[in-house]
Amino acid sequence: MSTLFDQLETLYPEMVDIRRKLHAEPELSFHEVKTPAFIADYLEDLGVEVKRNVGGRGVVGYIKGALPGKTVALRADFDALPIQEDTGLEYSSKTPGVMHACGHDGHTATLLVCAKVLMENRDQLKGTIVLIHQFAEELAPGGAIAMIKDGCLNGVDVIYGTHLWNPIPVGEVGYLGGPIMAAADRFEVTIQGKGGHGASPHETVDAVAVGSSVVQNLQHVVSRQVDPLKSAVVTTASFQAGGPFNVIADTAELIGTVRSFDEDVQDLVIEKMEQMIKGTCEAMGATYSFKYVKGYPAVVNDATETERFAEVAKAIHNPEKVVETTPVMGGEDFAYYLREVPGTFFFTGSGNPEVGADYPHHHPKFTFDEQAMLTAGKLLIQAAITYQE
Amino acid sequence: MSTLFDQLETLYPEMVDIRRKLHAEPELSFHEVKTPAFIADYLEDLGVEVKRNVGGRGVVGYIKGALPGKTVALRADFDALPIQEDTGLEYSSKTPGVMHACGHDGHTATLLVCAKVLMENRDQLKGTIVLIHQFAEELAPGGAIAMIKDGCLNGVDVIYGTHLWNPIPVGEVGYLGGPIMAAADRFEVTIQGKGGHGASPHETVDAVAVGSSVVQNLQHVVSRQVDPLKSAVVTTASFQAGGPFNVIADTAELIGTVRSFDEDVQDLVIEKMEQMIKGTCEAMGATYSFKYVKGYPAVVNDATETERFAEVAKAIHNPEKVVETTPVMGGEDFAYYLREVPGTFFFTGSGNPEVGADYPHHHPKFTFDEQAMLTAGKLLIQAAITYQE
Amino acid sequence: MSTLFDQLETLYPEMVDIRRKLHAEPELSFHEVKTPAFIADYLEDLGVEVKRNVGGRGVVGYIKGALPGKTVALRADFDALPIQEDTGLEYSSKTPGVMHACGHDGHTATLLVCAKVLMENRDQLKGTIVLIHQFAEELAPGGAIAMIKDGCLNGVDVIYGTHLWNPIPVGEVGYLGGPIMAAADRFEVTIQGKGGHGASPHETVDAVAVGSSVVQNLQHVVSRQVDPLKSAVVTTASFQAGGPFNVIADTAELIGTVRSFDEDVQDLVIEKMEQMIKGTCEAMGATYSFKYVKGYPAVVNDATETERFAEVAKAIHNPEKVVETTPVMGGEDFAYYLREVPGTFFFTGSGNPEVGADYPHHHPKFTFDEQAMLTAGKLLIQAAITYQE
Amino acid sequence: MSTLFDQLETLYPEMVDIRRKLHAEPELSFHEVKTPAFIADYLEDLGVEVKRNVGGRGVVGYIKGALPGKTVALRADFDALPIQEDTGLEYSSKTPGVMHACGHDGHTATLLVCAKVLMENRDQLKGTIVLIHQFAEELAPGGAIAMIKDGCLNGVDVIYGTHLWNPIPVGEVGYLGGPIMAAADRFEVTIQGKGGHGASPHETVDAVAVGSSVVQNLQHVVSRQVDPLKSAVVTTASFQAGGPFNVIADTAELIGTVRSFDEDVQDLVIEKMEQMIKGTCEAMGATYSFKYVKGYPAVVNDATETERFAEVAKAIHNPEKVVETTPVMGGEDFAYYLREVPGTFFFTGSGNPEVGADYPHHHPKFTFDEQAMLTAGKLLIQAAITYQE
Repeated sequence: MSTLFDQLETLYPEMVDIRRKLHAEPELSFHEVKTPAFIADYLEDLGVEVKRNVGGRGVVGYIKGALPGKTVALRADFDALPIQEDTGLEYSSKTPGVMHACGHDGHTATLLVCAKVLMENRDQLKGTIVLIHQFAEELAPGGAIAMIKDGCLNGVDVIYGTHLWNPIPVGEVGYLGGPIMAAADRFEVTIQGKGGHGASPHETVDAVAVGSSVVQNLQHVVSRQVDPLKSAVVTTASFQAGGPFNVIADTAELIGTVRSFDEDVQDLVIEKMEQMIKGTCEAMGATYSFKYVKGYPAVVNDATETERFAEVAKAIHNPEKVVETTPVMGGEDFAYYLREVPGTFFFTGSGNPEVGADYPHHHPKFTFDEQAMLTAGKLLIQAAITYQE
Repeated sequence: MSTLFDQLETLYPEMVDIRRKLHAEPELSFHEVKTPAFIADYLEDLGVEVKRNVGGRGVVGYIKGALPGKTVALRADFDALPIQEDTGLEYSSKTPGVMHACGHDGHTATLLVCAKVLMENRDQLKGTIVLIHQFAEELAPGGAIAMIKDGCLNGVDVIYGTHLWNPIPVGEVGYLGGPIMAAADRFEVTIQGKGGHGASPHETVDAVAVGSSVVQNLQHVVSRQVDPLKSAVVTTASFQAGGPFNVIADTAELIGTVRSFDEDVQDLVIEKMEQMIKGTCEAMGATYSFKYVKGYPAVVNDATETERFAEVAKAIHNPEKVVETTPVMGGEDFAYYLREVPGTFFFTGSGNPEVGADYPHHHPKFTFDEQAMLTAGKLLIQAAITYQE
Repeated sequence: MSTLFDQLETLYPEMVDIRRKLHAEPELSFHEVKTPAFIADYLEDLGVEVKRNVGGRGVVGYIKGALPGKTVALRADFDALPIQEDTGLEYSSKTPGVMHACGHDGHTATLLVCAKVLMENRDQLKGTIVLIHQFAEELAPGGAIAMIKDGCLNGVDVIYGTHLWNPIPVGEVGYLGGPIMAAADRFEVTIQGKGGHGASPHETVDAVAVGSSVVQNLQHVVSRQVDPLKSAVVTTASFQAGGPFNVIADTAELIGTVRSFDEDVQDLVIEKMEQMIKGTCEAMGATYSFKYVKGYPAVVNDATETERFAEVAKAIHNPEKVVETTPVMGGEDFAYYLREVPGTFFFTGSGNPEVGADYPHHHPKFTFDEQAMLTAGKLLIQAAITYQE
Repeated sequence: MSTLFDQLETLYPEMVDIRRKLHAEPELSFHEVKTPAFIADYLEDLGVEVKRNVGGRGVVGYIKGALPGKTVALRADFDALPIQEDTGLEYSSKTPGVMHACGHDGHTATLLVCAKVLMENRDQLKGTIVLIHQFAEELAPGGAIAMIKDGCLNGVDVIYGTHLWNPIPVGEVGYLGGPIMAAADRFEVTIQGKGGHGASPHETVDAVAVGSSVVQNLQHVVSRQVDPLKSAVVTTASFQAGGPFNVIADTAELIGTVRSFDEDVQDLVIEKMEQMIKGTCEAMGATYSFKYVKGYPAVVNDATETERFAEVAKAIHNPEKVVETTPVMGGEDFAYYLREVPGTFFFTGSGNPEVGADYPHHHPKFTFDEQAMLTAGKLLIQAAITYQE
């Protein structure tokens, strides 16, 4: 194994180059064109058998080992976010309003270089490694579900994936059996008031005023209506209403997300939100529409595979730095793979204030410690190879 | 006089044509190009002496009567609003997002056709009629102040103006001595929170949540802090915050208007608003900026001229339909003319459900009863001519 | 007249004594026992013909002049408020929680000493003076309505009344034709949630949280739903909910008042309040009851009598200090007398920081400048006597 | 053991009688007089060595077995709550406003009858059983801390305690290693506005309006500021403000509780609450005082003792009904005993809709299934006796 790891370390500069190249050219979910082409070309150049356009924009590579064995999938996602980058990095996004603010550039660079190393060692490899390069992780319904439908898990026995993770310091690895990431839903509320002149509120139903009361009242769902022992988040991410300063707004659009680990909590939140919106709008004479789209379900790691992974990780890494983590409210469509095959999704610590990697994911100043890619690569390779034993 | 009125009635179809032409081609405040050119050309075709680009984009016409007399100004404004028209009228705005939703098209058409009639009767006219075609009434600092600075009131003894007014039924005329329209100010609040992942509110300062609390608390300014015997409006017209559904908003922009008749109330509202915004932001860990731009002062009609106008109006109109009106919270930069010379600003009723003229001003479905233009025209002409007596 | 005024001035110390005695022994509305007995005894000692228990607890005195003439009523109210006095005055209330915090002690002392002077000059008096000493002005339905039913206005041609008024400086007198005081209503909202353990909000409907949202949303009635040119007040005066710190409240009681001058506004406020309460409670899963009791109507002064009063007042007082005042949001059941007979209700300025008379009415530290009683007495006498001319 | 259990079952009617007697005569925390006297007398009648007034109002009994062994403490609390009972039970509280609404009557009855059985079997008992009858569990600082200071744990090797628990169905037992009950704190907020006449809000700072905004904003602490993966409750249990319907409230008193398991969360909540209260009060021109009293810390069960208890419980009870439970947000001063000696606190299910035991603890209609006392008794005895093995 140490040979593989040595090779990976040697290729670290390439990994960094790839990551920075991807970082500079981010593509939004469901609009990825150049990124999957680059991935597919890279893999084909290595001699990997490649399927393009899997489930739409996904790329799947197949590395067949010389020896018989099982089929292990490794997954990396490659889409970016509609955020205006503000990192000041040399290799900042060249596309205004689009940014790799979640580390998917790192995931992709890691898996590509892992592929290179694995290809170079194909003669000693058992079984098959399936490289799942997934599009559109950031936007429901996500790319995973379409790639699965299109066969990316066919014949796969087990799957591993990781997220470079700033809340965990670089050098540390976080694993957890059971639910590790939350169900992530999307909602839209349209409040229909009645517009009019800014000087005559009594002739209108002021959608800004109604919307503000709705947002205030929605706080009660989490603070008063969900069991305090259960986790839930109700975030109104966007409030858009009104135009000219002297025209009372006709409508307000609230868009946001709900997170939960527990289906009962999810259902309760939906019910209570609608009740809160309905009552508040009626109180003020407005009408509303409420659209709730369930997003990715919770990511539930297989207990056995997670335990195995933790042992394997401790064997090749400082065991004190391989720690049981707490679940995270963020969602991930890795959830869908785990509904089909066993496996585990783990966090590779990438936080490091010394390199500016102390902003949260999805922040305009987000970046990660690139050293984390090396750790992630080793862990994925090791998880895959030891599975054959 | 009846000759003049007969001529005006004969020209009513032209008035309607001009109004509909202007309606279809609205131009935003401070962006008027075609409208003033059309006005100036029309007046020059009549033989009126015209000054273009007065104060920027204004047009001033001078009709010199054959007989000696005083100088009377008549004013009409010609800008439109950033509203997407939704009237379904044949002659709807051709410019997306821009609309004559306040009747300025009607004001302009009225004054142009009045000019035509007055020119045709120049031999019997005393003194001078100054036609003030004003740009940018809808957006502070407005066009009036610049046109005055550029000399439009030079030599003017008195000024009259009117607003086609849907809250008053067509056929009725509203006058009022003293304050008839409110001071109309503009404010902008920027709330600076801290963005982040929609699933991790505790790592952020949620600008949507803070902004909603600010809007709720701002209601107290009018409901609890202003003397209930005094009038004030605090309208948050626009609330803009956030982007993607799963990213907690960094900032929220609130834009709105304050209306008042009384400077003490205006000052109190400014002070209380800032206190409310500051405290609420501090409560939630956000910072803010608060920009308050005093707009037009209250329109204060001259008592003597208003009384004279009321008498004159009753003489040519059903006197029961010439009524003392109540002040209106809307602002008007006609206020500035009245700070320089005496005069009066009156409302010409233009509401009529039978022609769809039952939406408030600034509403996407706003239109007015075009018959009101004829009434307005007669009243302006009569006010001007009788002033010479 | 000057003789009468000289006599009144001589009796000023007695007026002060009576006022302070009454101040020390306040009695709540509809619980007055000692006060009316004292008044009746005092008047009988003067030789005034007295009716006790008029309409329940009222006292009416009749001073018949030696000369023929009309019948003029003068009214003073004598009840106190459920407020704990905190003035530190020597003659502070001896009854815990009850206080003359509105000046009715002064009204009564004034009218009693006026009676004394009028009795001493009965031989020159024309017509009849009816002294209406009214109970229960502070608490709807008030004493006026019952006293009228019981005949206190029988034969009365005109009525005058005054309020010692701290918002106006002592020495000044305020008059106003038309509406001078508002309609004053009372409301009670009971919010029924579901109680439970303070640690388990999700098993409850938290009446404190619901009530707080109701109060917040009720601000919108005045700030957004009432015409800003019209006056209205919605005050939630009392919020009572909950008991032990760790028990979530089952119910919340909101009690308050609504003020308006205009019946349309009053009706709108009632409708909008109920809508706001209903919607907000439904939003949060609570139920409610809403009880609204219309109180005194607006006090509408007779135009002619008010004009006459203003002239008369200017004749005996510094005319610059007799000023047209603005209407006041407070209610007064003097309204009922003015529905039956013409008359006027005026304000006698009693504010004076030098004697601590700078707290608002109904404040625990309220007191007034006793010199105002002398002014009030002169004005009432003069209004009454000149009416005969 | 079966002999002991048989005896306990035989004495079940007595257990019920004692419980009902105590239920009818509840005493508030720190005001217990008759209850501890009854307990001490009962134990002395059994021949138990008793210390009265331990730590104030506690009672401690010592049952010394005939055989040598360790010292095991069993604890039951005996205070009641300031709640008006509304169960309609025959043996309802005879004291208005005071009620055993948490099951402490059952705890006491259980431990007393256990003592009777243990005394009857003293010849076979090893070591010493310390019976800790604790006062004032419901009200911080609680009785436990004082009883410990007064020596109740002297020589004690281990402690067990239970709570009859309606959220768990009768017949079930809940255990949990680590934190099982939350830290329970108390807060008081006094908002100082400026009172005045209900018709003149602009001359006041309306404490009801300010308080309502504070309560609304406090929802954000849990909904936006605490990590959604951590548990916290902020309950404003009581809102008291105002008096007469037409007097704007001077002050508002908010009283409530905060629950948390984690000291970091507790500290964060305190900080954020104060910030929220301060900012909101400043926004509206009010001042405030904020008093926060940390109550009982979290109840943290000893891992080893909890595991041992679970095994022991499964041995004498249907093992499927002995389940690992989830932590509970309620507080318990049993926490203090566990800071001194190992032990475990468990829940004995007592919910049963068929006997009306389906109301939450602290509800006016709360009652529990008395059969649960028998289960609790057996488990306490068994835990104590097997500890000696």
